Amino acid sequence: MATTAMPSAAAYEATVTAPVNIAVIKYWGKRDESLILPTNSSLSATLSQDILHSKTTARADPNFTGADTLWLNGTPEPMSASKRLANVVNALRAKRAALEASDSLLPKMSKWIVHVTMNTFAGSSRIAAAHSSAESKSTSMWDGPPATGCTRVAPPSSDSAPDDQSSCGSHSRNHGRPKITSHATLSSTRHRAHWTDLEALVLVVHDGRKGVSSTSGMQTTVQTSALAQERFKSVVPQRMFDMKQAILRKDFDQFAETTMMDSNQFHAICLDTFPPIFYLNDVSRAIIQLVTDFNATPVAGYTGKYKVAYTYDAGPNAVLYLPRQFVRPVLALIQHYFPAPTDVPAADYFADPYKVGVNYPAPSSTNVAELAKTKLTPHAPGAIKRILHAKIGDGPRVVYAGPATGAGETGLMGKDGTPAKK
Amino acid sequence: MATTAMPSAAAYEATVTAPVNIAVIKYWGKRDESLILPTNSSLSATLSQDILHSKTTARADPNFTGADTLWLNGTPEPMSASKRLANVVNALRAKRAALEASDSLLPKMSKWIVHVTMNTFAGSSRIAAAHSSAESKSTSMWDGPPATGCTRVAPPSSDSAPDDQSSCGSHSRNHGRPKITSHATLSSTRHRAHWTDLEALVLVVHDGRKGVSSTSGMQTTVQTSALAQERFKSVVPQRMFDMKQAILRKDFDQFAETTMMDSNQFHAICLDTFPPIFYLNDVSRAIIQLVTDFNATPVAGYTGKYKVAYTYDAGPNAVLYLPRQFVRPVLALIQHYFPAPTDVPAADYFADPYKVGVNYPAPSSTNVAELAKTKLTPHAPGAIKRILHAKIGDGPRVVYAGPATGAGETGLMGKDGTPAKK
Repeated sequence: MATTAMPSAAAYEATVTAPVNIAVIKYWGKRDESLILPTNSSLSATLSQDILHSKTTARADPNFTGADTLWLNGTPEPMSASKRLANVVNALRAKRAALEASDSLLPKMSKWIVHVTMNTFAGSSRIAAAHSSAESKSTSMWDGPPATGCTRVAPPSSDSAPDDQSSCGSHSRNHGRPKITSHATLSSTRHRAHWTDLEALVLVVHDGRKGVSSTSGMQTTVQTSALAQERFKSVVPQRMFDMKQAILRKDFDQFAETTMMDSNQFHAICLDTFPPIFYLNDVSRAIIQLVTDFNATPVAGYTGKYKVAYTYDAGPNAVLYLPRQFVRPVLALIQHYFPAPTDVPAADYFADPYKVGVNYPAPSSTNVAELAKTKLTPHAPGAIKRILHAKIGDGPRVVYAGPATGAGETGLMGKDGTPAKK
Repeated sequence: MATTAMPSAAAYEATVTAPVNIAVIKYWGKRDESLILPTNSSLSATLSQDILHSKTTARADPNFTGADTLWLNGTPEPMSASKRLANVVNALRAKRAALEASDSLLPKMSKWIVHVTMNTFAGSSRIAAAHSSAESKSTSMWDGPPATGCTRVAPPSSDSAPDDQSSCGSHSRNHGRPKITSHATLSSTRHRAHWTDLEALVLVVHDGRKGVSSTSGMQTTVQTSALAQERFKSVVPQRMFDMKQAILRKDFDQFAETTMMDSNQFHAICLDTFPPIFYLNDVSRAIIQLVTDFNATPVAGYTGKYKVAYTYDAGPNAVLYLPRQFVRPVLALIQHYFPAPTDVPAADYFADPYKVGVNYPAPSSTNVAELAKTKLTPHAPGAIKRILHAKIGDGPRVVYAGPATGAGETGLMGKDGTPAKK
């Protein structure tokens, strides 16, 4: 496509950051491809953006020519290739056009070509959830001058949930069968201040592309797995209820058990697919073993059944949810059994943004082998590439919305409307 | 226990070899622990004993003292520790006692202590099935003098199938619900001559002990997996029917698809167990990928959907079933992508009992990369420890039954009634 060397004076842009959402009740498969209706409800926890986020800049410029374009981590593709994003842009454009029709003084932004640059967090396989929010937020530039704040337009795959996902520490997505929805239950859990004791460790086992794309993989599951139907129909509705109760009551035992069982079952239906889909590898499985063994090892004064929960999306990377008091022992265990790669700086393995050694309760023993009665032996260095520590966070943040200057300082887009060179 | 230095003149023994049975419809879990009733029917193929077999010697000696004892691969344990074997011995002893009551001239063998030595094939995780036959056969020594040939007593876990398992290339085990049984279907498939084109390759990925024992693992699955119930109730009955039809008709496509889907689903319900049970490792998964890719690569003149099927029992070792014409190409692929260990003689990696290079049809290309369009790269040497080639075989063979000489030449037991030193 042809681009302008400088943004037009009329050009508008917005830049937002969006968190990583990690599903604790997993969605896998669509019951309607065109309407993007999922086979079952799902529920995610939103991780803080301090360390982990994706960043998106969208710009509309009357001088842009060609087609709407998306750059995903620097690689351009036509916007139409991303069905989800194209749907959002179309919906917002129609809304803007209606606004322009009612006020002839407004610039005709609805006619302008749009460029979007999106940089995702490498190592997270389930960035899509974050995008759904980022897409709506980043297109706040459609509001144009005068700025009227953020406009949210839910993409078609999302329900029109009455709770504001952008202020939730967790959010659920309804699969469209009203009897299963119970947003009311979640309403009191919407603020991230609700469960401040809950934290997360992301263990990056593999940061490359995965073998089977989610989009094609999940449809093969729907078509070939006999067990998947049972999951969609009978298992998930009960788990959605259990999980909402667990979050409401801040019941970590219920939360942990449901999270782990749901992760296992998601990978079970992938394996029951033909040909089978594998996302967990030997390192993923060793992490599950370590978590299982740590949970089974008593800690004086702690009466809970679980101390940490694992969950895996469509990839081998683990996300561990855990109460604050177990962050230090679990980090000690992970760092012992999965030592840092020898060829990268220590801070690339674990940046320690919250200074765990200083600010967190010490483990019950300084002897790592005593923390978990496990038969595991330490892996070779680098089996886990990176450890990220996150708190439970809030939704997308608008970093900038206003005239396109092309400075590329807060945004991702250079003066010419393509990704900024940094 | 005290032992005699020499067998009593009255002592009797029997030695049998038993094949490895590899289930193509998997059984996992009991619905009644005391009666050892499985949750679902299962169906196995029996591999030839040329390379793979277990060997068992049983001896009853009036001079033995202490308790009935089993040596499993040289390690002694009380017979009572093996519930299954103890059940068989008890049943045979009762039968022998009845015989003795009716004929006062018979030696009172039913009062004698029994020693059993059992050497299993290392690297097969599902030796149990073979044992059920070996147990009954090896206890043919209970018939005592005069020798009346073999007496079969089905252990309680087996149905009283009218087909003689010892002459079957495949056999099914009924889970006890009559409506599912269809032995009639199998009756014409009982001779190993039925499907002579079908062969097997056993890929030994790991020959050590597995982490989770089948016995405890399967009960955890029954208790915790929501998906397992669906498998037991709805999936297996249909697959038993499909598999019997496939064997009757020698329909390799149906056989292969059902075998692979059933293997996948067995491991899926293991993963849906809490805590999850893993038997497949990264090497197992790479073998599945290679099989999938080879099946998807066209071969001129072959119109079948599948060329080879994988199945995995409770361990990482693969068993591949395949028509004779694909033995050479599949061996070439396996040896290329999983090269031999560098520290053992080539014959320990693959002994080639049937001289594949001489006696089997050549692959369609001498270029291994052309045989399967795969993205796999060759593994480090030794990822697969051994490759075994087997034909479909028959049941247990009685090697010896008669007075105990203690020579240990055909049997496993020395003069003193303990495993022979070799």
